[in-house]
Amino acid sequence: MVETGVVYIGKKPTMNYVLAVVTYFNDGIREVTVKARGRSISRAVDVAEIVRGRFIPDADVRDVRISTERLSSEEGPATSVSTIEIVLSK
Amino acid sequence: MVETGVVYIGKKPTMNYVLAVVTYFNDGIREVTVKARGRSISRAVDVAEIVRGRFIPDADVRDVRISTERLSSEEGPATSVSTIEIVLSK
Repeated sequence: MVETGVVYIGKKPTMNYVLAVVTYFNDGIREVTVKARGRSISRAVDVAEIVRGRFIPDADVRDVRISTERLSSEEGPATSVSTIEIVLSK
Repeated sequence: MVETGVVYIGKKPTMNYVLAVVTYFNDGIREVTVKARGRSISRAVDVAEIVRGRFIPDADVRDVRISTERLSSEEGPATSVSTIEIVLSK
């Protein structure tokens, strides 16, 4: 079984998330998925690229999935938001 | 030979780029690549998802590639920017 880690990208500085991914790999986790929605999608790509370029050169981008999530609330109509999942493995 | 179209995502409204992609497909082009850098990456994912969800339901996401581009200028140090390429085909 492959142990996997997941890092959700929010509004914090990019390097916080880079550190979270690097920590997973350094703890022996072989696969880390970086997930984001909406405007944070750009930051998710930054995180994956910084991890690979500067910290874990042997990490591969195994898959990139894009999708749409429906958000419904009690007030107003449902809206959609784009999502991304970047699977890094080594 | 597969004829391909390319749409570069910039700062214009999302629907402008959606229309550009849809126009390619309606003109008989079978594969359209949506490209973006930096903050426009989120918009590129929106464009691909809106095309598939609302306009061209039989378009598949054939590939999503992420990468880093080095930008060098005469003033100041070189900087890096993340890029995305989303290949849609039908």
